[in-house]
Amino acid sequence: MDESIIDFQRLSRVGVIEAIWGEHKTVDQISKILKKYQLASQTALVTRLTKEKGEKLLIEFPSARFHEISGCLTMGAFKEFIPSEKEVIILTGGTSDARVASEAEISLNLHGIKTKLLIDVGVAGLHRLLDRLEEIKSARVVIACAGMEGALPTVLAGLIPQPIIGLPVSVGYGISGGGKTAMEGMLASCAPGLLVVNIDNGYGAAMAAIRILLA
Amino acid sequence: MDESIIDFQRLSRVGVIEAIWGEHKTVDQISKILKKYQLASQTALVTRLTKEKGEKLLIEFPSARFHEISGCLTMGAFKEFIPSEKEVIILTGGTSDARVASEAEISLNLHGIKTKLLIDVGVAGLHRLLDRLEEIKSARVVIACAGMEGALPTVLAGLIPQPIIGLPVSVGYGISGGGKTAMEGMLASCAPGLLVVNIDNGYGAAMAAIRILLA
Amino acid sequence: MDESIIDFQRLSRVGVIEAIWGEHKTVDQISKILKKYQLASQTALVTRLTKEKGEKLLIEFPSARFHEISGCLTMGAFKEFIPSEKEVIILTGGTSDARVASEAEISLNLHGIKTKLLIDVGVAGLHRLLDRLEEIKSARVVIACAGMEGALPTVLAGLIPQPIIGLPVSVGYGISGGGKTAMEGMLASCAPGLLVVNIDNGYGAAMAAIRILLA
Amino acid sequence: MDESIIDFQRLSRVGVIEAIWGEHKTVDQISKILKKYQLASQTALVTRLTKEKGEKLLIEFPSARFHEISGCLTMGAFKEFIPSEKEVIILTGGTSDARVASEAEISLNLHGIKTKLLIDVGVAGLHRLLDRLEEIKSARVVIACAGMEGALPTVLAGLIPQPIIGLPVSVGYGISGGGKTAMEGMLASCAPGLLVVNIDNGYGAAMAAIRILLA
Amino acid sequence: MDESIIDFQRLSRVGVIEAIWGEHKTVDQISKILKKYQLASQTALVTRLTKEKGEKLLIEFPSARFHEISGCLTMGAFKEFIPSEKEVIILTGGTSDARVASEAEISLNLHGIKTKLLIDVGVAGLHRLLDRLEEIKSARVVIACAGMEGALPTVLAGLIPQPIIGLPVSVGYGISGGGKTAMEGMLASCAPGLLVVNIDNGYGAAMAAIRILLA
Amino acid sequence: MDESIIDFQRLSRVGVIEAIWGEHKTVDQISKILKKYQLASQTALVTRLTKEKGEKLLIEFPSARFHEISGCLTMGAFKEFIPSEKEVIILTGGTSDARVASEAEISLNLHGIKTKLLIDVGVAGLHRLLDRLEEIKSARVVIACAGMEGALPTVLAGLIPQPIIGLPVSVGYGISGGGKTAMEGMLASCAPGLLVVNIDNGYGAAMAAIRILLA
Amino acid sequence: MDESIIDFQRLSRVGVIEAIWGEHKTVDQISKILKKYQLASQTALVTRLTKEKGEKLLIEFPSARFHEISGCLTMGAFKEFIPSEKEVIILTGGTSDARVASEAEISLNLHGIKTKLLIDVGVAGLHRLLDRLEEIKSARVVIACAGMEGALPTVLAGLIPQPIIGLPVSVGYGISGGGKTAMEGMLASCAPGLLVVNIDNGYGAAMAAIRILLA
Amino acid sequence: MDESIIDFQRLSRVGVIEAIWGEHKTVDQISKILKKYQLASQTALVTRLTKEKGEKLLIEFPSARFHEISGCLTMGAFKEFIPSEKEVIILTGGTSDARVASEAEISLNLHGIKTKLLIDVGVAGLHRLLDRLEEIKSARVVIACAGMEGALPTVLAGLIPQPIIGLPVSVGYGISGGGKTAMEGMLASCAPGLLVVNIDNGYGAAMAAIRILLA
Repeated sequence: MDESIIDFQRLSRVGVIEAIWGEHKTVDQISKILKKYQLASQTALVTRLTKEKGEKLLIEFPSARFHEISGCLTMGAFKEFIPSEKEVIILTGGTSDARVASEAEISLNLHGIKTKLLIDVGVAGLHRLLDRLEEIKSARVVIACAGMEGALPTVLAGLIPQPIIGLPVSVGYGISGGGKTAMEGMLASCAPGLLVVNIDNGYGAAMAAIRILLA
Repeated sequence: MDESIIDFQRLSRVGVIEAIWGEHKTVDQISKILKKYQLASQTALVTRLTKEKGEKLLIEFPSARFHEISGCLTMGAFKEFIPSEKEVIILTGGTSDARVASEAEISLNLHGIKTKLLIDVGVAGLHRLLDRLEEIKSARVVIACAGMEGALPTVLAGLIPQPIIGLPVSVGYGISGGGKTAMEGMLASCAPGLLVVNIDNGYGAAMAAIRILLA
Repeated sequence: MDESIIDFQRLSRVGVIEAIWGEHKTVDQISKILKKYQLASQTALVTRLTKEKGEKLLIEFPSARFHEISGCLTMGAFKEFIPSEKEVIILTGGTSDARVASEAEISLNLHGIKTKLLIDVGVAGLHRLLDRLEEIKSARVVIACAGMEGALPTVLAGLIPQPIIGLPVSVGYGISGGGKTAMEGMLASCAPGLLVVNIDNGYGAAMAAIRILLA
Repeated sequence: MDESIIDFQRLSRVGVIEAIWGEHKTVDQISKILKKYQLASQTALVTRLTKEKGEKLLIEFPSARFHEISGCLTMGAFKEFIPSEKEVIILTGGTSDARVASEAEISLNLHGIKTKLLIDVGVAGLHRLLDRLEEIKSARVVIACAGMEGALPTVLAGLIPQPIIGLPVSVGYGISGGGKTAMEGMLASCAPGLLVVNIDNGYGAAMAAIRILLA
Repeated sequence: MDESIIDFQRLSRVGVIEAIWGEHKTVDQISKILKKYQLASQTALVTRLTKEKGEKLLIEFPSARFHEISGCLTMGAFKEFIPSEKEVIILTGGTSDARVASEAEISLNLHGIKTKLLIDVGVAGLHRLLDRLEEIKSARVVIACAGMEGALPTVLAGLIPQPIIGLPVSVGYGISGGGKTAMEGMLASCAPGLLVVNIDNGYGAAMAAIRILLA
Repeated sequence: MDESIIDFQRLSRVGVIEAIWGEHKTVDQISKILKKYQLASQTALVTRLTKEKGEKLLIEFPSARFHEISGCLTMGAFKEFIPSEKEVIILTGGTSDARVASEAEISLNLHGIKTKLLIDVGVAGLHRLLDRLEEIKSARVVIACAGMEGALPTVLAGLIPQPIIGLPVSVGYGISGGGKTAMEGMLASCAPGLLVVNIDNGYGAAMAAIRILLA
Repeated sequence: MDESIIDFQRLSRVGVIEAIWGEHKTVDQISKILKKYQLASQTALVTRLTKEKGEKLLIEFPSARFHEISGCLTMGAFKEFIPSEKEVIILTGGTSDARVASEAEISLNLHGIKTKLLIDVGVAGLHRLLDRLEEIKSARVVIACAGMEGALPTVLAGLIPQPIIGLPVSVGYGISGGGKTAMEGMLASCAPGLLVVNIDNGYGAAMAAIRILLA
Repeated sequence: MDESIIDFQRLSRVGVIEAIWGEHKTVDQISKILKKYQLASQTALVTRLTKEKGEKLLIEFPSARFHEISGCLTMGAFKEFIPSEKEVIILTGGTSDARVASEAEISLNLHGIKTKLLIDVGVAGLHRLLDRLEEIKSARVVIACAGMEGALPTVLAGLIPQPIIGLPVSVGYGISGGGKTAMEGMLASCAPGLLVVNIDNGYGAAMAAIRILLA
């Protein structure tokens, strides 16, 4: 089988590291790719790994770190934090959104961006959100994770002027199962200027935040 | 063609008048049905009429009233208002929801239920909703109309203990066109105990409110 | 990771206990949340647990009860039954709907609402429903569970004046698999005033019933 | 442009006349096809015509008949009625289903099959259906038309042993608009042995009934 | 929990036995239902069982038979075959359709209807179907199973005058996965008078065939 | 507004002329684009025009030709026919597919490819297709247009070894309305090696045929 | 009917003007709202107007301007351009995207943001995009409009580090009709950090760009 | 159960071997079919096997080969390579597409067609594709595999004149999960003459390529 080609120039071209998407790859495929990163002395980020796959990779790459909540594996140095305060605030509607929020957080930290995570500020108990509003306004970019009906970023976008990235999460059941209702609700938002990424795409939301911070 | 059979017992059986659904019927078909109501001295409600159809029917039934905003035609006496204050409050996210909200209002009034309509209290400007919260809490039942992402009833259901009927409205475009995103967002709601009816079903929301008031 | 924030005011604000949704949370996450409930001496309800998760939690919280049919775990005192008869009747089309019906039942009982469960009154054998009609009419609110085509609440809504909450159930296969056909059929109902909640949302149907009873 | 080829053998092969589907054809295209029928002295049936198209065709084919309710045009002799009573009973949930029911009726009559049409026997007023049950049981085949949630054929299939063809109708709005919810509800039916055809396919339901009568 | 209610009158009312749908029931739930059948000396049919569930039930009900290919369990006597030849012919497009075809076959045999099964007559090799055409024409009813694009019943309906029941099968992948494309293709058929049941609904197709045979 | 940029190199780069898609452009926008073609002495093809738009353009561009059946406008010289026989055969299931088939035909003729059009060879009357099989086998590429269930290209792909391009057509109603069922049926085909293009994409099917002929 | 409530604080709260969504409002409803803007001396933006509605409003509000390509009406002063070069570049795949691109442009200009519009840089002729790459890189934010498969923002996001807002456009036919395929393609993008708004939401894309510029 | 009928004439009729679709068949069913191939001395190809099924079959058919990456099993001789260079080039957007690309490769090799596989040439790093363009142009047919948004074949179709078969792959998550977004994106392509097969249908893409090579 032909060799995989790593896009090492992506960092210089678009400012971000190419993540290795771990979900549909075998441990063997990921391992081959990581060796190329080692050889090139490049920092690597693997996303969407099961705990089992993560642990197998750690045996082969003991210098790597497996982040269990997010299912991410990182290998190589994180960028130094850019000296500024709370660049990106990540909000979640509930505890079940932790995996996705955490993927966004690690992806940002890896690129030297500071983050703050606020969980359980969902709209069913609006006061929890309103109580934190001043803190949230201190961020330069907000990533708002939500499953179910996904109303959190809509409510927020009516309250603050920051760029808000709606990050739909595949928690839910029945009509909200899989996260499509949350995603479509965010796209349909009546609040002006809400931006949306794919369901569970914590890495993508983080990369978009970096583009905005560098704009 | 066989004769239509009117369900005149519905009022005694389930407590509400059977609406004549005008959208897929010709003026001629509706006219024949209304004559049976006249003969039986029954109050009639026709929903989802165009202005053109409504005006044609008025010529034939001069005692009827055509309600232009809602597209409803009523013929016969409204029930007397039950002596109690603001039984049902109807909220809308925006002016575009007026048609549907108005269908609910007329359907309730016809059955002797008082209503209050609050428009433009959508979640993109949350203060508009919060400013009216005490007033809203005075209702026994709330009907919350919303198109787009349909977040209004979700936010409300986290704030007040009343029964809330989410009434999705077919205003929107792209992914929110036709009202399905609003409807699915209401069903997926993270707020406890939100109830939902079909898109644009103002009559149905009203009949549900009557069932609740009589419970 | 930031701490979860429990919405303990929900009971006073909207009259119902916030359920802990157990499906997408780890045992560890649920355990941390339950400890906060213990500390606050609050009654807790966890929904959508597998038997395995339920049993693990019982080891840590021996005073809790795991309700196997419904997959619910309760911890703390149930409210005393409000002295009135058969407030809410829960109907099911078949035995397969038991899990969802039972979630509604426990959620109501926890709040001090009496319930009666009638199973196997589906529309394929209409006499079974018609035979129980007088009994059903004695309820103040009816929750009608159905999978497949979900016609049960439609038929019922044509027969009785009570508020009826259609609760679609994810039993079925082919086009009815996942419960969407049942849900859409209930929303499309030709019967006036039928209310609908999300597929399998027994807790939500119960909370809606409580709102109605308190209206 | 190449000549159209009429399948005149269909009658001898599968026992039914090939209908000319008028909706996506121009008057000119239909006219050319009808001339071939004239030349071959064959009876023709054109379905799904607007009144405007129907009237234009009548000018050119004065011996034809345009059936306005159904939007069908027939040209040539109807088969003589086969001497038996009420072969096929066609039920409708409401007056709005008349167009589709009528297409089925004409298609059957054209083939010499007697029909009886019962309208307004929808499940929202169940007594209307139950009152006619003995009459319905006298049919050899039942075609049950319904829009909205489409529960009529399901309820019927639990009550009588005849073959029942569920004919979903594209009346409705919101989630029931276009007839898909009715169609899927019929396919998902919990009643045993319900058969379904495409939305608005009155001709198809009739042809299926003929196949059954000849079986 | 309330007791289940078996619809034992269904046989006299609609001419067929009520199947016990095994997929979403526990072995314990099925066992309780089967005991009621034993007590009433009624023949029982359980559908959609895994091998594991089937074997557990056999231990408790040794007189029952588990039909592995179809996943059906029968208990009690089959009706004697009605003395006529090849009443129903069941066709399949391929070997993968065996499970569904076999469910139809057992359901028919249980009611005393003879069947003949022809597999691998899919339209990708048309000669296989055309070679068997005379044999197929000897049937009174044809059940045509197909997954993928589901064209088999359409092609057949253009060739023979018998009633044809299209039975979509959930074999396929990508766009055909789950059987919806096959089902919708059958409903959309250009051939006149094709009838359709839910995906994988072998029992339903059989019950429809019985209704037709008795018509 | 910035000027449009015509991709005149497309012919040399990918071997085909870029079509001007007329449906969502105003007459004014199309006119400006055509003038650039005139200036560059390039042959132009505009697709998906209404008769009204076509006639307006003819006034401004009298040397152009409007092809009414297909809704195409061509301006400039057609390529000379490449001296070979019946390169591409275009089949249609019915007369209603003429518009789409004709768009494919003109697009091919414009590039110097000979075509032959066979209409009314749909699978509901299989003999019509089988009768022409030898003729069809003489083609180098076959474009098979079909609406409804779209089975024609599947049946054909089991009979001949040529490349077959399935061209779904948006004729149909109910579940087949808009052509999606035909398209998905072609993609799901059980016949090996069937290729598919977008619904109504006659131009695209033609361009694919040209790529194949030049391969 | 209750009075509409304008959210005049939105500018101070979230930095942008609330657009009046014109599509589902009558001229009368819009007129009443515009009068409130006049009274408050506020700049107003009405989107999604037909030419007919726009012209009627101009008669009543002669100081307003109707922008025909975009279907927008503006009343009151545009903000002065912020002295910086080419803040936002708007790209389109084709001329048919002009309406949506123009809505974004006017919405930005109204807020004092300079824009540059590049049309016809779709990916079917990649050189057109690559030729403009240096120019595009000079923008602080890029809005990339595309219908059909919507690949333009994906390709761009792999080439430049700027924030890119994918703006799906409802041009297309068959599977791409309505813009959903373009929208889902953008959300599914393999390129890191692409942001998406609702189909045809030019105003929303502009408001998001403003949030980013102010971040 | 009736015997399966192998379509051994398919090779002579349409030029390709009938693949045995392994996914929904048991090892026992496949084994019976393979024995018929052995008896007839025919080369067999089984697709979509798990490793477990593949290894079980190897025990029974030791002369067969199981191709682990593709999940294919072949038995019997491959055709000799037709003496020409790089007939078909197979491209993939990423390593995760390997399974599907490999199914296409083996299916082609089995028929004597040479292939070349280029992986990781996805559009997020366009230079990787542009660097290989000359090599790709040397192919007679190109199969372009892509998941996610599936833009690769669209970009390619704008750059080269060869026939391009878009092969959507079911890698992705959220909105791209299951491959439907990639498939619909390819069908919606703005590039002229792109051809598409079902998701993951490597065998089908290969058979289409053979049809083209023989055209």
